[in-house]
Amino acid sequence: MSDVRETVLELARAARAAARNMQAVSGAAKERALLRLAELLDERRDEILEANAADLAAAEKAGLTGPKLGRLGLDERTLADLRKGLAQVAAMPDPVGEISEMRTLPNGLQVGRMRIPLGVIGFIYESRPGATVEAAGLSLKAGNAIVLRGGKEALRSNTLLVRLFQEALRENGLPPEAVQLVGVTDRAAVLEMLQLDELIDLIIPRGGEGLIRLVAEHARMPVLYHAKGVNHLYVDEDANLDMALRIAHNGKVQRPGVCNALEALLVHRAVAADFLPRLEARMVESGVELRAHENALPYLKNAKPASADDWGREFLDLILAVKVVEDLDEALEHIARYGSHHTEVIVTEHYARARRFLREVDASLVLTNASPRFNDGFQLGLGAEIGISTTKLHAYGPMGLRELTTTKFVAFGDGQVRG
Amino acid sequence: MSDVRETVLELARAARAAARNMQAVSGAAKERALLRLAELLDERRDEILEANAADLAAAEKAGLTGPKLGRLGLDERTLADLRKGLAQVAAMPDPVGEISEMRTLPNGLQVGRMRIPLGVIGFIYESRPGATVEAAGLSLKAGNAIVLRGGKEALRSNTLLVRLFQEALRENGLPPEAVQLVGVTDRAAVLEMLQLDELIDLIIPRGGEGLIRLVAEHARMPVLYHAKGVNHLYVDEDANLDMALRIAHNGKVQRPGVCNALEALLVHRAVAADFLPRLEARMVESGVELRAHENALPYLKNAKPASADDWGREFLDLILAVKVVEDLDEALEHIARYGSHHTEVIVTEHYARARRFLREVDASLVLTNASPRFNDGFQLGLGAEIGISTTKLHAYGPMGLRELTTTKFVAFGDGQVRG
Repeated sequence: MSDVRETVLELARAARAAARNMQAVSGAAKERALLRLAELLDERRDEILEANAADLAAAEKAGLTGPKLGRLGLDERTLADLRKGLAQVAAMPDPVGEISEMRTLPNGLQVGRMRIPLGVIGFIYESRPGATVEAAGLSLKAGNAIVLRGGKEALRSNTLLVRLFQEALRENGLPPEAVQLVGVTDRAAVLEMLQLDELIDLIIPRGGEGLIRLVAEHARMPVLYHAKGVNHLYVDEDANLDMALRIAHNGKVQRPGVCNALEALLVHRAVAADFLPRLEARMVESGVELRAHENALPYLKNAKPASADDWGREFLDLILAVKVVEDLDEALEHIARYGSHHTEVIVTEHYARARRFLREVDASLVLTNASPRFNDGFQLGLGAEIGISTTKLHAYGPMGLRELTTTKFVAFGDGQVRG
Repeated sequence: MSDVRETVLELARAARAAARNMQAVSGAAKERALLRLAELLDERRDEILEANAADLAAAEKAGLTGPKLGRLGLDERTLADLRKGLAQVAAMPDPVGEISEMRTLPNGLQVGRMRIPLGVIGFIYESRPGATVEAAGLSLKAGNAIVLRGGKEALRSNTLLVRLFQEALRENGLPPEAVQLVGVTDRAAVLEMLQLDELIDLIIPRGGEGLIRLVAEHARMPVLYHAKGVNHLYVDEDANLDMALRIAHNGKVQRPGVCNALEALLVHRAVAADFLPRLEARMVESGVELRAHENALPYLKNAKPASADDWGREFLDLILAVKVVEDLDEALEHIARYGSHHTEVIVTEHYARARRFLREVDASLVLTNASPRFNDGFQLGLGAEIGISTTKLHAYGPMGLRELTTTKFVAFGDGQVRG
């Protein structure tokens, strides 16, 4: 057995044992551990910033630049945000043990569904070290053990953060093996994790499309992920065009590099001549490049013609594809063909078309008259999220506490048998 | 491209297109189609029984015997049961479009979860042709398309039943491609289905362990299944022994060949001398063979010593493994090691131990003082089931209408953007 294999296997076995112990743990103990970690992030701040500085220096030396380097950094403010996040998760009601849909059968047997942890979660992610704390915090609150495998650039930061997490667990009588980091940063470690379907119940990959594809292809256990966010805005013939403009701008410009950004705009033929020149003026002002279908070009002064592969493309940049459509049907067709089941928006004042769009579009969040930016765990009321899923089974949309649990049936009898 | 590949691909593509059309379909139309099928099962009874007789004759000629041959048969009574089942499913509230957990954000945006179909389901099953009608009926009510792949012994029956289903769909303006049968009965067709993760959203295999393993290993899409039911009864020191006896007998004898049967009994040391001789007397009367751990043998007159592989074994026969345990902890350990996450029972009058067992045992149904036979969709209030899942994600336990759907987030705004 290779060293990598042995290391990963040992971690996963310890996680499985910890997950079993977690079943008997009280909500209060989990809460205390989360709050203790928040304290440790404050008390050991200098140590954390030092480890992170070493990561940053090494990454810079290795040629990392721009947003990738930026995401790697921790500072007073990100630490404060992490502490706040931990306090919020700690304060949430414990999902474990909640019994719902209790009913009494004619024979007196009471049956219901009890919420329980999933077991062991594998979280495979790229550079941002804050994700280590957030993912492990949610996992713990849900009663799971987690095996973390972060990027190699963040290894020093992640190692320390996980050590602090384990300290907080140990101090509160919880198994420290409930939060573990795979310290081997080459790809072999990921591939080993993906084989362990007996020990890891769910894999959540978070990162670029390459990572997601690798995981989805090789995992022997269930995987929840979103590969990309190719999100559309359909401006209906009965749209409030001022509103459409505001939503389009917010969808594209607020944070172009994240998955809930707008990537394409479809506009009804009847309002194209009115809307598109205004769109162009507003977008050009913010440095956005428009790539237009030939049917939209006549309404735009500086747009580039879109190429065939600009449809269904996640630009993650100040670029927006634009097309004129005949009607709602064509918009629905286009979205069904090119969308990535992430976030889709209609702007309209027309009741029936709004209803139809909401019902027929297959995406994790479908909005009427609002920005795609609301596809986010905090915004949708989940409290915190470990990622967004566009896989439809188990979780579709942001994954919060509930998505890290499941339910089993429980029955309370007094001797019932079946005839 | 091979012929098998092409055939399966064509069916799955048609199912995908049908699934998209199903999104716009009314609950009333689905209800009418289900009731029309129930009528057709009556009107075309002779034709169905004739096709089934041909299947039975061919199967007998091919050497099929016993329960396998029995399961293949349809008669007036099974047809009446199927009609009744269809009427029940038709009468259930339409799950599609139901919006839950609606809340209003501080900015006035209303967000909630809308229940939607999963899309295309692949159902791979063995001989019982009634399963064709039941699975397709539930799938339709949930708004999905289904690709059925039944066993070769039932091909004539299944072909006719699917044709009737398509007639019922067509007459009610629904796409007949929403219910399709893969007519190729060799294994290659199954393997082709399992590759089509772009066209089939979920695979449900139902049958022997060999089939389940094949599917779980090769499927590129999510799979929900139970491999086996190794179900335990723990008789606590504070058990009502009469009740324990009744539940043990019902669990073993009522239908030994199905997945919710009892396979092993663990009894607390303090009551072993009292309980085990009574258990033996009652079980021997019903022809049950006891296979005892060496620590149980002294209490039993005619039991065979259990071999190491009798623990964790699904006998599906009149055989019961028996062991004495020191306490609840040892019972929990044993179940964690040998159970198959299907159904586990404690018999006790002790409050805290009942609570602990319910909480800590990881199985799709955990019961106190009741028979494992209640692990069944009808009994647990799901109305009807397409199988039982012991995979924890999405569905844990019997899978009914709800488990064949998912939810997406929907948002109703009036121009909200994020700052």
